[in-house]
Amino acid sequence: MMSDNNKNVEIETLGEFGLIDELTSDTVLRNVSSHVGIGDDCAVISENDGEDKLLSSDMLVEGVHFNLSYMPLKSLGFKAVSVNVSDVYAMNGLPEQITVSLGVSSKFPVEALKELYAGIHAACEYYSVDLVGGDTTSSFSGLILSISVLGTASKSDVSLRSGAKENDLLIVSGDVGSSYLGLQILEREKGVFNSNPNIQPKLDGYDELIKKQLQPIARMDVISMFREMSFTPTSMIDVSDGLASEIMHLAKSSGCSFSVYSDKLPILEKSILTAQELGIDPYVCALNGGEDYELLFTADQKDFEKFKNNPNFSIIGFATDKSNANLLIDKNDSAVTLNAQGWRHF
Amino acid sequence: MMSDNNKNVEIETLGEFGLIDELTSDTVLRNVSSHVGIGDDCAVISENDGEDKLLSSDMLVEGVHFNLSYMPLKSLGFKAVSVNVSDVYAMNGLPEQITVSLGVSSKFPVEALKELYAGIHAACEYYSVDLVGGDTTSSFSGLILSISVLGTASKSDVSLRSGAKENDLLIVSGDVGSSYLGLQILEREKGVFNSNPNIQPKLDGYDELIKKQLQPIARMDVISMFREMSFTPTSMIDVSDGLASEIMHLAKSSGCSFSVYSDKLPILEKSILTAQELGIDPYVCALNGGEDYELLFTADQKDFEKFKNNPNFSIIGFATDKSNANLLIDKNDSAVTLNAQGWRHF
Repeated sequence: MMSDNNKNVEIETLGEFGLIDELTSDTVLRNVSSHVGIGDDCAVISENDGEDKLLSSDMLVEGVHFNLSYMPLKSLGFKAVSVNVSDVYAMNGLPEQITVSLGVSSKFPVEALKELYAGIHAACEYYSVDLVGGDTTSSFSGLILSISVLGTASKSDVSLRSGAKENDLLIVSGDVGSSYLGLQILEREKGVFNSNPNIQPKLDGYDELIKKQLQPIARMDVISMFREMSFTPTSMIDVSDGLASEIMHLAKSSGCSFSVYSDKLPILEKSILTAQELGIDPYVCALNGGEDYELLFTADQKDFEKFKNNPNFSIIGFATDKSNANLLIDKNDSAVTLNAQGWRHF
Repeated sequence: MMSDNNKNVEIETLGEFGLIDELTSDTVLRNVSSHVGIGDDCAVISENDGEDKLLSSDMLVEGVHFNLSYMPLKSLGFKAVSVNVSDVYAMNGLPEQITVSLGVSSKFPVEALKELYAGIHAACEYYSVDLVGGDTTSSFSGLILSISVLGTASKSDVSLRSGAKENDLLIVSGDVGSSYLGLQILEREKGVFNSNPNIQPKLDGYDELIKKQLQPIARMDVISMFREMSFTPTSMIDVSDGLASEIMHLAKSSGCSFSVYSDKLPILEKSILTAQELGIDPYVCALNGGEDYELLFTADQKDFEKFKNNPNFSIIGFATDKSNANLLIDKNDSAVTLNAQGWRHF
């Protein structure tokens, strides 16, 4: 049967986003409750009473998204939930329920799965979400975790990717690049260990980078800050594939472009030092590293004062007319076109 | 890290339901909207306006749930959606949105995935549900499909597994066992083909059995019939793991037992003939075959007239006090204890 269909177009030629477009471009929304479908961090299900429901799903595959040789299962459980609830925060909503579907080899020890679930339960407690269902099945090759999250937001709070307008400020929470550098350190030490198991891994001093990689915290606190400052982003997305990729998603969805100042990018001093040690460019890590799970959003100029000297946020650029390119501008005012490598799983 | 956790308890010693109990027994529900969590066909998310949301997730893994050597990808896409929406019908609700997460090898041809999505889109049209999101990622071994479904029901319509009471009628829609027999025919012909590829598979005459296996239709029509006859089941479940297993789920959740009459089980004549041809017991196929995606429910005695001569339904037994065993009674009135083998993926 497969031979009839094999036109020799392989997925890797399209990439993840190209593939999703190819498969879902003719999707029709039939139910009035389906307010926003594919193409944002969550689907938006409209309710009658001023509340919207937010629905999102993510799949994590061993060997693609995580490596059990340095990812403790409890951290994996926590991270899998964080990755999912982050999509609800990226809509300016609050997650309430998750389902967890698990594919696992029958030879996997039950105690190891209990560690995984200890992480899932801890994350549920941290984010105040409820584990309400899922599925457990056998897998022939490694661990597969598929989580869906259901959240809620009042209709006036929901922040789509599509709301940015010219002159809006482009702002990111926390820092970017440290998760990727944490991964590079883990990979380096794994390589050393594999070539000589008697050498202990050198992870001391990289704690904040490694923690950001192994157990990132979704920015629930940022949503609370928004509520306290009576602020609603004009558009928002979470930084999972890489800052540059997410900036381009906002630009495409909103029909605008962005100018980004490289010297405004929030990069930890430890990230700069580690990048230098590893011989890689810290700006590339910040722009294309991914897995930061920070929130990237736009704000009307009138909200400038709320973010100007706020240590939780960095104003990294502004929206321009879409006739411009997305630009990365350095401290000498020379500009290059912003490129997004993102993550290519395929 | 794994070595610390390896207490040598393997999943296969617990089975799927034992494993789920082990991992989720200490689950806490923190949100008032989480009305029903783990343990029914769907979670029930309570809304304020008289509507409940229903949420369920299922994962299908190549080699465990389907075999691409005889499962056309378009049928697989349709079936994956059917399996999920069936869980919403089993709550007496209507599905409205699905998310589809896909793990697939980068070498998989795009045209084959388009076939899969053609089936998903066709099922969305058939069931009037909207594909609103999901995830697409790489997998090292075969195809993984994880679908979540969000449905809706008025609070007074929701049918849990837990509502059956003594003397309620036990009723099943359609027929049971044909899907399992369709699978046996497909497996037999695959075996013949593998031993001699020049022999054409003999599938003629088994169409209804094979169709039930490859492309089962979830019983949306049964929910419409319930509405038309102003009927609400006292409890309900869909038949995915096997009739006996589902009867025991209803019994356990409702705190009752059931007496089931073997000569009342709806078994197609073609199923009986095929079972005889294959040398297996048609009653075992009906009770333990699974993948029927029929609806099994209980009804108050006052509703007897609605189902007595209704060709869409079979009254197969009744609820008894939980001090009794679950019994299978033959036409000579001799009774044996009902056993559930269900599906053991592990």
